[in-house]
Amino acid sequence: MLLGRGIMFAGAMGTGAAGSLTGAAAEPLKDDPWSLEMGSVVPAYQVPSRFEKDVVRTRSNPNNEFRNSHARTPHHLLQGTVTPNGLFFSISHSGLPDIDPAQHKLVIHGLVKQPLVYTVESLSRYPMVTRMHFLECSGNGAQMFSNEPVQATAQALHGLCSNAEWTGVLLSTLLEETGIDPKAKWLFGEGADSLSLHRSVPVKKALDDAMIALYQNGERIQPGNGYPMRLLLPGYQGNMNIKHVRRIKLIDQPAMSFYEAKTYSQILPDGKMWLFHFTMEVKSFITQPSFGHSLKEPGYYEISGIAYSGNGRISKVLVSADGGKSWAQAALQEPVLPKAFTRFRMPWRWDGQPAVLQSRAWDESGAVQPLRPEFVAARGQTSTPVTNPLGFPNQHYNSITSWGVDCIRVRRGHGRRRNAWPRQADQRG
Amino acid sequence: MLLGRGIMFAGAMGTGAAGSLTGAAAEPLKDDPWSLEMGSVVPAYQVPSRFEKDVVRTRSNPNNEFRNSHARTPHHLLQGTVTPNGLFFSISHSGLPDIDPAQHKLVIHGLVKQPLVYTVESLSRYPMVTRMHFLECSGNGAQMFSNEPVQATAQALHGLCSNAEWTGVLLSTLLEETGIDPKAKWLFGEGADSLSLHRSVPVKKALDDAMIALYQNGERIQPGNGYPMRLLLPGYQGNMNIKHVRRIKLIDQPAMSFYEAKTYSQILPDGKMWLFHFTMEVKSFITQPSFGHSLKEPGYYEISGIAYSGNGRISKVLVSADGGKSWAQAALQEPVLPKAFTRFRMPWRWDGQPAVLQSRAWDESGAVQPLRPEFVAARGQTSTPVTNPLGFPNQHYNSITSWGVDCIRVRRGHGRRRNAWPRQADQRG
Repeated sequence: MLLGRGIMFAGAMGTGAAGSLTGAAAEPLKDDPWSLEMGSVVPAYQVPSRFEKDVVRTRSNPNNEFRNSHARTPHHLLQGTVTPNGLFFSISHSGLPDIDPAQHKLVIHGLVKQPLVYTVESLSRYPMVTRMHFLECSGNGAQMFSNEPVQATAQALHGLCSNAEWTGVLLSTLLEETGIDPKAKWLFGEGADSLSLHRSVPVKKALDDAMIALYQNGERIQPGNGYPMRLLLPGYQGNMNIKHVRRIKLIDQPAMSFYEAKTYSQILPDGKMWLFHFTMEVKSFITQPSFGHSLKEPGYYEISGIAYSGNGRISKVLVSADGGKSWAQAALQEPVLPKAFTRFRMPWRWDGQPAVLQSRAWDESGAVQPLRPEFVAARGQTSTPVTNPLGFPNQHYNSITSWGVDCIRVRRGHGRRRNAWPRQADQRG
Repeated sequence: MLLGRGIMFAGAMGTGAAGSLTGAAAEPLKDDPWSLEMGSVVPAYQVPSRFEKDVVRTRSNPNNEFRNSHARTPHHLLQGTVTPNGLFFSISHSGLPDIDPAQHKLVIHGLVKQPLVYTVESLSRYPMVTRMHFLECSGNGAQMFSNEPVQATAQALHGLCSNAEWTGVLLSTLLEETGIDPKAKWLFGEGADSLSLHRSVPVKKALDDAMIALYQNGERIQPGNGYPMRLLLPGYQGNMNIKHVRRIKLIDQPAMSFYEAKTYSQILPDGKMWLFHFTMEVKSFITQPSFGHSLKEPGYYEISGIAYSGNGRISKVLVSADGGKSWAQAALQEPVLPKAFTRFRMPWRWDGQPAVLQSRAWDESGAVQPLRPEFVAARGQTSTPVTNPLGFPNQHYNSITSWGVDCIRVRRGHGRRRNAWPRQADQRG
């Protein structure tokens, strides 16, 4: 077992030999100011310490201009698997609507036997389920289609995914009540925000594990995540998980809405397109250490990160510290839950020499996170950071993230150095 | 399967017969104001909707007078198993200290081979673990020692327990590094707040599952819960889980501090005292429906609540709707984790007649939540709400909570009515 190292007490205090300060005579810590005075008031709703002011979501539109807003989760500053609600990622196409939950309604209609309207209050009487699931924007990691490694944090590169405990009513429970016309093959979900983002979802998914979620991590879903109710489609790309959902209309074919016909499609190298590519594929990335962290001295560190798959449970994560030449199996934090973040950990002794940290995940369906050359061959790469040559946003990046470590700080690279791609290493991996 | 009921669409809209509004012609919902305008800015750290302003912790000391502060979790307004950090319960004996994490130190000394000092930064290099655990104040439910049922919400009665995902370094990892003198049988934990609350903990517990926790639900622990580090003792009463921990001193016998010799002891009916009674016993309570909720009409409802035990996993929860005359086994939400909240659920058809809702939990050790007569015989009851006749606070209440339902609202009772104790029903249960 590789353990970390503490700072030797004797050394830290500059006194005595190791072991000489044991016993009742030791009075080792001075009283800091906060140990000498009454503290501040306990608030009704807690917030983080003021010393954590930099642990926030980075925002693409902090002045709320008339366009999209992205707010990214600071994965490099977090631990565990739950993303706290304050830091859960959010993408809004028209700002945060100020919805009165007493007025909000959800209608299920179209090819059903009995159209019905639901409110927050009426749904609260239904059988509920509680499940841990990740959500990920299909554009998460879009910068990594770039043919040059982007120097950026895990927050900037992977901050459009988060993980929470959701509680709500299974959509299958409500559809059992409305009944389904046999002609219905899809449903059309629509939000109550002014953009009315809408997407088509196969009825099969609706009857599987889709949920009308009311609670996130125990409390009501917050406005940026769909207050007061959200269509949750575990494992499916984020934008289909309609926030502020007000309409579910059963239909016989996809609605071909703007967002599914253009924005959220993926152009392939051969010019064809993934039009309905819903599942977020198996993926992992290292959060500690990662870009933005400093390793001040050689010695023991824990390599830790997040793995998840829209197919189900993570079955294995391998970690490399030499850019893919050798791999070792990481410990997975129990419980390993389906379609949820799994934290992986690996003790690592850094010898102070350049290193390249990588992780690679497998899921229970047998899917594996592709190496970079495989990914590029199948999906292409671009010289622009987040769009392909047709101007479509890059989607569904799930290849490996490499963090190059030099003597001072962790930096980003697909490979060993900023300008050196680890193609050979990846092929051997 | 008992399902809830939606509001019939046709009825709600006052138009047409059921089924007549299917198809493309249906345009069932008017646009609310929030569907017609750009929303507000996406914040860096999200907060709940303004419509959730009453979903907060109730506080015993909102003006921060020079005494204890309690802040209670609003269980009757939450769902699932995770308590969000903003609503996690907190008891502070001297307000919230404003601790600079770059200055804070933890010393492990006393009967060790090598005293060591740790900082937030040095601990971040150690192997970490992530575990879901509840915390409960030993005084949670103290009012229920009362020989009269107290009319109060689940927040008021049970709000001093909460559940979170904790990440940190096992104390055993650090003690492996310091070494332990064979004479060490206890450790003395001390916080950096000005009260310096301290408690004695058996070394056996320290080597089992004790943790120096740094993260709660993914982000740094908040000030009210022990920022920047906390001694977490899963299953042990809350006050032993030293917040802002700055000292762990290994000793050969309990320190007999003020808090363990008086405040957190439990007087028994025979005049003897539980002096070192650490484990929070198996317990459950119903959160939906509960005091403060209204049932507007007969029909289907979901009965739901929380069960937990300091001994390990919950193995079974029974629910009664007739004050204990008959019981049925509730569904337990997976995953059922040790020393963590387990959500239980039971569909219920309310016929509009008076009912008494109760839950009773078992854990994997075989321990069972005591019925009221058993509890009173073993532990006593009092006429004062939160202290016994010697002026000691009541501790470790874990008997059953009964919610009486009449035609309008759910009210609190040990039994069927405010003044009718269900002794007979409890004995039959």
